[in-house]
Amino acid sequence: MSFSEEAVLTLDQALGQLSLEARELYLDHDVPILDQPLTPLSFYREYVSPNKPVLIRNGLQHWSAITKWTPDYLREKLGERVVTVAVTPNGYADAITDGKFVMPEERQMAMSEFLDIMDHPDQYNGVFYIQKQNSNFIDEFEDIIGDVEPDIPWGTEAFGLKPDAVNFWMGDTRAVTSMHKDHYENLYCVVRGWKKFILIPPTDSAFVPYDTYQAAKFTEKDGTFHVEAEKETGQIPWIAVNPLAPNSQKYPEFGKARMLEVFVKEGEILYLPSLWYHHVQQSHGCIAVNYWYDMQYDIKYNYYNFLQNVNNINKSMKKD
Amino acid sequence: MSFSEEAVLTLDQALGQLSLEARELYLDHDVPILDQPLTPLSFYREYVSPNKPVLIRNGLQHWSAITKWTPDYLREKLGERVVTVAVTPNGYADAITDGKFVMPEERQMAMSEFLDIMDHPDQYNGVFYIQKQNSNFIDEFEDIIGDVEPDIPWGTEAFGLKPDAVNFWMGDTRAVTSMHKDHYENLYCVVRGWKKFILIPPTDSAFVPYDTYQAAKFTEKDGTFHVEAEKETGQIPWIAVNPLAPNSQKYPEFGKARMLEVFVKEGEILYLPSLWYHHVQQSHGCIAVNYWYDMQYDIKYNYYNFLQNVNNINKSMKKD
Repeated sequence: MSFSEEAVLTLDQALGQLSLEARELYLDHDVPILDQPLTPLSFYREYVSPNKPVLIRNGLQHWSAITKWTPDYLREKLGERVVTVAVTPNGYADAITDGKFVMPEERQMAMSEFLDIMDHPDQYNGVFYIQKQNSNFIDEFEDIIGDVEPDIPWGTEAFGLKPDAVNFWMGDTRAVTSMHKDHYENLYCVVRGWKKFILIPPTDSAFVPYDTYQAAKFTEKDGTFHVEAEKETGQIPWIAVNPLAPNSQKYPEFGKARMLEVFVKEGEILYLPSLWYHHVQQSHGCIAVNYWYDMQYDIKYNYYNFLQNVNNINKSMKKD
Repeated sequence: MSFSEEAVLTLDQALGQLSLEARELYLDHDVPILDQPLTPLSFYREYVSPNKPVLIRNGLQHWSAITKWTPDYLREKLGERVVTVAVTPNGYADAITDGKFVMPEERQMAMSEFLDIMDHPDQYNGVFYIQKQNSNFIDEFEDIIGDVEPDIPWGTEAFGLKPDAVNFWMGDTRAVTSMHKDHYENLYCVVRGWKKFILIPPTDSAFVPYDTYQAAKFTEKDGTFHVEAEKETGQIPWIAVNPLAPNSQKYPEFGKARMLEVFVKEGEILYLPSLWYHHVQQSHGCIAVNYWYDMQYDIKYNYYNFLQNVNNINKSMKKD
């Protein structure tokens, strides 16, 4: 089809039309909800191939973790185990604080100590979150590994491969995961409590402003948190807005991004497609396990990179 | 990821990078060949979702058509049947001739007459091709419908729906299908002879020039073909180059399009993904049946439309 007789758009209009058409063509107004997992083929065809999130209820009732993983049980099974915990003064790990990209202090502590902190967060200095995303579940939680499945069988069959990483998450309700995206297909399973995700599709990426920030790290000394620059790491590109309080004066384009909110509750699985921006909050003591599967670097990724290039060209033309 | 520190490209460069990256990321140098059909899930994941063509051998050996469909058999079963045949002086139906988009003369004739013409093409004026793409197989060939399957079972399971149309093709080796694209997923099955496809991926669409042409139709009068304008149809957008003899002076950008060639022989199935440009030639008397399945209007289509808009913006900026 030729478009030569149609009015030629500006790049801004083309980017706006991409975003609008995504909503009209295939993204629903809300994240769709299924009452049970689909067949691997239907899941792949209806959600993975179109890169569309979906919430799946009743997908974890056969996990003994759902009934077993009380604080008492975790203390009994894992009490002496040393786990890695991210500690920040404000709940923001790997996020922008005072104009820097600040990583958390990483502390090793016995699981029983972490559970004490969860019980009485106000008696401790800082916000504590088990959130290490290097397959920490397999490395640090092997005593309870049998309470969940090593993979999500219908996901593994759909993706045609085993997960690359399985991560365990537990922490304070003040702990927030700042908006970012991953190069993974993600099956995110909530075992206790709830997570609240704010999602933005990759087709809206022109409206998600990035900036570069000096890398830094929180360090507690004598009861006070300091931000120390990580000189060797240098500058880090990161999303410049907090979707809970966007600076619309500085980043007006973010107002065009379409945010989808979804609560993922106990026993539910969120399929979070590759390259979707996500920001995460949680109930206090929420426990989750997520499975990262390799994404396909195919035509969608190819088009996605094209979109990034066009977006940069558009921005640079405005500067000129 | 921010790209702000990378050199900003021109739109030409961004379009070139899209094309190059498609080849590097997921398109092979040639159309891949499978020795048998995959499972529906593997077919969908490896080929449909990434919008990637594949040639499938040994997919039709259970069709009785493969052994039965000789000219004698067709004459016996269908001899008196009236079929719709496209007739042109040059083999080009729905193609550019003398600066017009010229449709074929459509003639109704007995199948036995069509078979006579196939036997002695030199004794007839014009090039004859059964190529009506409105599920003509079901409408005009019902006497032999049982010799093939009503759908491709693994395709139907993969796509999650029955085909929208099943078309029967038979014709002269001089008959050419000019380059175009369809909004369908296509399973193209060759029963006798061979087809040669020239394919261009949609990610190369910036290099495939369109123009608009007066619609016209071939009409034979007293042994001579005339081109008569179809005033009511008006102007038609169509691809301006013939890939067999591209005018590289007038359309230099076409040189950047990556053409893939694939021969589809008796008993083989080509999965021709939606929105891929294709140009088709054939052996004399080649018989084929193809199944059109609805495409998904999802993120790939969304990105595809964005690409068309950006391409038009780029062209219009060059004109200014």
